[in-house]
Amino acid sequence: MNPDKNVLVVGTGLIGTSIALGLTAQGIRVFLTDIDQDALAKAIKVSGATQYLDQDIALVVVATPPASVANVIAAATIDHPLAVVTDVASVKGSIFRELERIGTSGWERIVGSHPMAGREVSGALGAQGNLFLDRPWVIASSEKTSAESISTVKKLVETLGAFPIFRSIEEHDRAVALISHTPQIVASVLAGELMDAEGSYIELAGQGIRDTIRIASSDSNLWTEILSENSEFISKQVTQVANHLLEFAAALDSGNRESVTARLVKGNLGRDRLPGKHGSSQKSTSTLVVRLDDKPGELARLFTVAARSNVNLEDVRIDHSLGQPTGLVELTVASDAIELLKPALEVEGFVVIS
Amino acid sequence: MNPDKNVLVVGTGLIGTSIALGLTAQGIRVFLTDIDQDALAKAIKVSGATQYLDQDIALVVVATPPASVANVIAAATIDHPLAVVTDVASVKGSIFRELERIGTSGWERIVGSHPMAGREVSGALGAQGNLFLDRPWVIASSEKTSAESISTVKKLVETLGAFPIFRSIEEHDRAVALISHTPQIVASVLAGELMDAEGSYIELAGQGIRDTIRIASSDSNLWTEILSENSEFISKQVTQVANHLLEFAAALDSGNRESVTARLVKGNLGRDRLPGKHGSSQKSTSTLVVRLDDKPGELARLFTVAARSNVNLEDVRIDHSLGQPTGLVELTVASDAIELLKPALEVEGFVVIS
Repeated sequence: MNPDKNVLVVGTGLIGTSIALGLTAQGIRVFLTDIDQDALAKAIKVSGATQYLDQDIALVVVATPPASVANVIAAATIDHPLAVVTDVASVKGSIFRELERIGTSGWERIVGSHPMAGREVSGALGAQGNLFLDRPWVIASSEKTSAESISTVKKLVETLGAFPIFRSIEEHDRAVALISHTPQIVASVLAGELMDAEGSYIELAGQGIRDTIRIASSDSNLWTEILSENSEFISKQVTQVANHLLEFAAALDSGNRESVTARLVKGNLGRDRLPGKHGSSQKSTSTLVVRLDDKPGELARLFTVAARSNVNLEDVRIDHSLGQPTGLVELTVASDAIELLKPALEVEGFVVIS
Repeated sequence: MNPDKNVLVVGTGLIGTSIALGLTAQGIRVFLTDIDQDALAKAIKVSGATQYLDQDIALVVVATPPASVANVIAAATIDHPLAVVTDVASVKGSIFRELERIGTSGWERIVGSHPMAGREVSGALGAQGNLFLDRPWVIASSEKTSAESISTVKKLVETLGAFPIFRSIEEHDRAVALISHTPQIVASVLAGELMDAEGSYIELAGQGIRDTIRIASSDSNLWTEILSENSEFISKQVTQVANHLLEFAAALDSGNRESVTARLVKGNLGRDRLPGKHGSSQKSTSTLVVRLDDKPGELARLFTVAARSNVNLEDVRIDHSLGQPTGLVELTVASDAIELLKPALEVEGFVVIS
């Protein structure tokens, strides 16, 4: 993106603040606004962006809750008569229908977009500048949008490390009903079953259900809006999943093993259709697992050894049981740094498991 | 475990080989056997265990496919008249019913067990010695089992870093129907929907669906056996999930937002019932978010400050963009340690965001 062009992000939730963070980190001037002054103040702190007062804006990114997006887009085309205006909402059809209804005059500058990224936490404090890295980011516009406007949004997408995918509005909404909205409902319903269960059952939960229902932690108000905006496509898809589950139960009841296997195999094959992590990031990384005594100072000692080896840690995960005597730490580093780090840790008495 | 006592693992798939690997790593003598000679050879290579010929055995671990477990247990009590015999199958009731039918005489030495760990890959090559670390491992026996036999299996569990959980056979089977078998079916069915979808839809898949259907990659033959052995409890649970999905779709169709929100909130609460990384929700923790320059040594400096404050870090997350100049670090500590840690960090020049 052209660093001389100012970007305005309207709405400082997780996505808006992550966009601001990702852009400021690359030296682009970003301004923020939000009707919630507390949220705005947090987002400014997190992102290093500036509060919007009355600066010239070349690109407006609307990152407000779904139900308000059409109105905010329409207002932005008036307030910023030269700016390209895009949004990041998860449903596109309802927004464009609402814009038709409002009768906006800025069609050629309005670009629908949708980053396929998120976290199960919400708000500015969950923001990550690299949230969009290697993620698909859909661009779905009306026929009235100019090629130049689309090109501006494409540059935004690429600047944030995502890759643009062009779809029609209906294609987009059908696709997200399948690959985003239905999984959300399935995860939420499955997690909801735990509310009816005895605690002694839940204690046995392993990693499988934990992953399966991870996104059930998503913001219920935001998701009520998202699902309501795309209810027609979603309802069909969810009903189909429910019917397939009933068929699965019937196959179990009747002892029809061939049918059970066929349904599991279909799941294997479906899972295999998911793309790998796209364009798999420029930089190849590897992970070391280190076993650590659970006492103050051990982590510091670990990171001091890493620093002394001049190895930069790309990610750290502590798989850690409160109250257990030991924990596992996963260190992600550039692949070529492994052979530096591993012996350096071992010489200091750390147990490198893999 | 007593390193003088020999362990025999029968069946060299993922779980059997992981057990062998975890035990040999601690100096315990492990012997392996499998009717599949290729699998056996691989597992011996991976685990460093020895092929079983005719050694004295103190503990037999049966890790064969579910349908054969009862017969293998019964045979093991005869072949090894002094050994404790345990298994690791995911369903316990069907095995004990089958043992009753066979009429084994070794009841006091037979201990049912089930490690709540696994991977979506199968076979010896996926084995990990630390697969069971910090995981629940259920021990579920008949009343005829001796306390001494149970104690031997408890030591096995603890030697592998897992924590033993005692349940009745029925409690175990009902619990896994909910927290393991139903999630498997839900993930498989949802993944199966991708088989009917256009490729242009699937390209948009993000992390959400990827996690939700991760376990859909599981071995379809193994899971046909597991599900068939516990079909009664599973079928009820899956039918309930299907009905709740149909109710969710109806709420969307009728525009009943309160109902949609209530169902999502139930999912939030259900998700929160999952234990922290070990039955550990007892201890209250809080999170500090710190902004950090991305250069070698900054993390070490951060953890040195934490250690000096005598604060133990329960978890660390680095939200970090490769090549970006700054990152956010989330430190999770005991709630009462926050007021120690925050000023200590700020005095050293760290920016504490929240």
